[in-house]
Amino acid sequence: MRKHITGFSNPTVKYLRSLRDKKHRKRAGQFLVEGLRLLEDARVSGHVPRQLVMAENRDRHDLVDRLEGEVGAAGGEVITTTPDILSKITGKSNSQSVVGVFDELDTSLARLDRGSANIWLVAQDLRDPGNLGTMLRTGDAVGAGGLILIDDCADPFSAEAVRASMGAVFTQGMAQARWDEFVPWLRGGPGQLVAASLRDAVPYRGAAYQAPCFILVGNESQGLPEAYEAECDLRVTMPMKGRADSLNAAVAGAVLAYEVLASLDG
Amino acid sequence: MRKHITGFSNPTVKYLRSLRDKKHRKRAGQFLVEGLRLLEDARVSGHVPRQLVMAENRDRHDLVDRLEGEVGAAGGEVITTTPDILSKITGKSNSQSVVGVFDELDTSLARLDRGSANIWLVAQDLRDPGNLGTMLRTGDAVGAGGLILIDDCADPFSAEAVRASMGAVFTQGMAQARWDEFVPWLRGGPGQLVAASLRDAVPYRGAAYQAPCFILVGNESQGLPEAYEAECDLRVTMPMKGRADSLNAAVAGAVLAYEVLASLDG
Repeated sequence: MRKHITGFSNPTVKYLRSLRDKKHRKRAGQFLVEGLRLLEDARVSGHVPRQLVMAENRDRHDLVDRLEGEVGAAGGEVITTTPDILSKITGKSNSQSVVGVFDELDTSLARLDRGSANIWLVAQDLRDPGNLGTMLRTGDAVGAGGLILIDDCADPFSAEAVRASMGAVFTQGMAQARWDEFVPWLRGGPGQLVAASLRDAVPYRGAAYQAPCFILVGNESQGLPEAYEAECDLRVTMPMKGRADSLNAAVAGAVLAYEVLASLDG
Repeated sequence: MRKHITGFSNPTVKYLRSLRDKKHRKRAGQFLVEGLRLLEDARVSGHVPRQLVMAENRDRHDLVDRLEGEVGAAGGEVITTTPDILSKITGKSNSQSVVGVFDELDTSLARLDRGSANIWLVAQDLRDPGNLGTMLRTGDAVGAGGLILIDDCADPFSAEAVRASMGAVFTQGMAQARWDEFVPWLRGGPGQLVAASLRDAVPYRGAAYQAPCFILVGNESQGLPEAYEAECDLRVTMPMKGRADSLNAAVAGAVLAYEVLASLDG
């Protein structure tokens, strides 16, 4: 179905614009993905938007044509509008942009199949959506099964997280849970919980990693609560040669994940 | 010297506010550092602000007292103002904030002593100030000598870069240069130039790294130009198990830097 919108006060415009806000995303259960590259990543991963929005005067592009076709075939809607209204929806001035509206993905723990991968990333109270998206991207690179978001993490469906993930939001498994739900789930099957720590820890190189290995990364400023570290099966340290005692959270997760990958593959 | 400012149109207020903008920073040769933690990092590294700005009603704090003392002893200025004017300067509403004004650091290549460290990070056209700051932070952690910024990188003295560096902007050496200046400088002494690459590359684990090792990371979307990769003494690949063919730039640099550290230390 095709629709053309010319009025700023059109309810669809208001709705789409509202999806830039977390509260409205949660209520609607939908999120926005902006840019042809990310939309193509989504499509290749089998995710077709419910709605596709672009400016009426957008240049033709094969990928857009194909997207339009798939959206139509799936019963979705292609919306054209003015460049000004498109800017209002995206918050940016790029009139060549394409925006997709997707249903939020199921993020229940129960959906994850821990046996499907050797590595899982776990983030606790990670507040920066860029860090969160970067962890998804790293997860894709190391062949992780997905990212488990513990406690009060940033919203993985925010524009910034989706962008930083470079499309991995569509390919990595993703779950959201409180610590009190996560631990019983983890202990209900095989799995080694590993964290970078300064307490009672062994060097991260050559540590005895076991699959499936769950790599736990804590909040950007506070790190992990002591009780969470205590729950870990393995605590490892990375060299800190300088004045600081910690790395950026997404960096720490990645250095550890590549070490685990080398250890389990080697 | 102490000064109290109550007028929004005071030239000092205008000047301080202008330092949030790159163009004005370059013209003035000064930059802002916000937050007691970063100011304390700077102080410990021997960097005392020229001016220290805070709200008149700020709560007392030992660290602030000490900072005030050092600023005074160095001939600097302590400026108190209203919470509203402070917010205007910082762009934030935190009336407990403290802001320091620093002279920009010398970023000439000639200043770097390549023999002082085994690892150097090199970023080319890195546009994201958060990535840039994160690389400085990683450099501190791996004991790197510093970060060399090639071509058109983000400004290392922006608030975002300084914040992401967690103070490493004051401890890591830093140079800015065009590629055409960097290569002759590099080849004028010992140094191995290494990049992550897909072309004619060896696995990054166990590659023959040599000190001083210069780890080159390219632009976030384009990666490195082919000619820059060709100049490298060693091209290495990291496993990419998923759909994507690259990592976040700061993550790639960190994974490689930790591998080089283990190789040279081991």
